[in-house]
Amino acid sequence: MQNPLQIRRKIILGSGSPRRRQILEGLGIPFEVTVLSTDESFPEELSHHEVPVFLAQKKANEFKKLCNDDSSVIIITADTVVSIRGEILNKPSDRQEAIGMLEKLSGTSHEVITGVCISSRESRVSFAEKTTVYFRQLERTEIEYYVNAFQPFDKAGSYGVQEWVGYVGMEKIEGSFYNVMGLPISAVYNELRKFSIS
Amino acid sequence: MQNPLQIRRKIILGSGSPRRRQILEGLGIPFEVTVLSTDESFPEELSHHEVPVFLAQKKANEFKKLCNDDSSVIIITADTVVSIRGEILNKPSDRQEAIGMLEKLSGTSHEVITGVCISSRESRVSFAEKTTVYFRQLERTEIEYYVNAFQPFDKAGSYGVQEWVGYVGMEKIEGSFYNVMGLPISAVYNELRKFSIS
Repeated sequence: MQNPLQIRRKIILGSGSPRRRQILEGLGIPFEVTVLSTDESFPEELSHHEVPVFLAQKKANEFKKLCNDDSSVIIITADTVVSIRGEILNKPSDRQEAIGMLEKLSGTSHEVITGVCISSRESRVSFAEKTTVYFRQLERTEIEYYVNAFQPFDKAGSYGVQEWVGYVGMEKIEGSFYNVMGLPISAVYNELRKFSIS
Repeated sequence: MQNPLQIRRKIILGSGSPRRRQILEGLGIPFEVTVLSTDESFPEELSHHEVPVFLAQKKANEFKKLCNDDSSVIIITADTVVSIRGEILNKPSDRQEAIGMLEKLSGTSHEVITGVCISSRESRVSFAEKTTVYFRQLERTEIEYYVNAFQPFDKAGSYGVQEWVGYVGMEKIEGSFYNVMGLPISAVYNELRKFSIS
C-alpha cells in the first residue's frame, strides 16, 4: 500500500538541523537537504510569535532563484525560538551563557515557537506553532554536567528535548512534541497534502 | 564531568520493549535487559489508573528470586495502557482490530497511562503517570496505510507515537512525551536518584 502523501515534486528541506531532517524523514517521503546561509537578524518590534515566522520566510527568500529556475521545487524552511517571561533565548555563545539559560528555564515553564514557511514558485504558506514546556528544578551539577557533556551551543535555549536534560528535567509539555524538536510535523504534513496528487 | 546519577548497583530493565530501552539509555547509565514472561491479566474492578501499576508490580514479582539472590539488583518494570471513554485498548490481535482502535482514537483525545515499579530486595516504589494525547481526524486511507506498513500489533492502542501515524496525526499532548513512548523517564530518574551515591 502506498504512502497517502504522493507528491511528484522535488521537496527541499532548507535547514541544516539534523533534528528537523530526522522528523521530516518520519513522513516516509523523499526529500533533499539544501542549506543556504541567512542573516538571522529581525526587527525588534516583532512579537515572539512573529519572529520565527519572519525568520522562516527570510530563509525561504534565499531559495527564490532556485524556485524560479525549477517550478517543481517545494521548499520547507523553519526557525525555532525559546521564549521565557518576555525574553527570547537564542543559541548560547559560550558555556557560561548556556548555564545561565538553563538556570532561567529551571523550575518553570517556557514557550517553544517554531515558524514554518512552505514555498514554491506559485505559492507560499507560513505559520507558527507553540508548545509550552515545563522543567522541574534542575540542580547546578545537573546543568553543568549537561552543558559539558552535550555542548548545546547550536540549540536555542541551550537544550535538546531528545538529550539527557530533556529526559531527566522535562516534566510535561502542552502542544506538539516534534515542534519542540524543531518542526511541527503534523501541521507540515497537512500543508504538504495540498500538493499531493492522491 | 561525571553523570550526576552514580549508582553502584546492577540496574535491570525488566521489559522487552525496544522503546523503553531506548528511553532508559537517555539517562546515560549502564543497565541490563531481562525479560521474564508475566500473565497480563488483572482484576476487573481496578480503575484504568490502577491497571498499569498493578501489572508493573506483577512483572516485578517475577524478579523476586533474582532480587533475593543478589542484593545489588534494582529492577525497573513498567506497563502502558491506552484508555478512551472508559475503555482500555490493549494490543490489537489482528489487522481489523488495529484499524478499529485507530478509528476510535481518530479526531479525539485519549489517555496514555504508564505504571512503573522500581524494586530491590529492600524496597519497592510504584507510581503511574498520565499523558493526554489528541489525534486529528484520520482518514481511512491513512489508517490502513499505517497498519499495513507498520504492523502495530505489539503496541497498546495500535500506535507508536514515534512512528508515521504519530508524526502526521498527533496534534498535541498534555503531559510527558516519553510516558506515551512507554516510560515516564523524568519520574524514573527522580526515583533512581535515591539510590545514587553522589
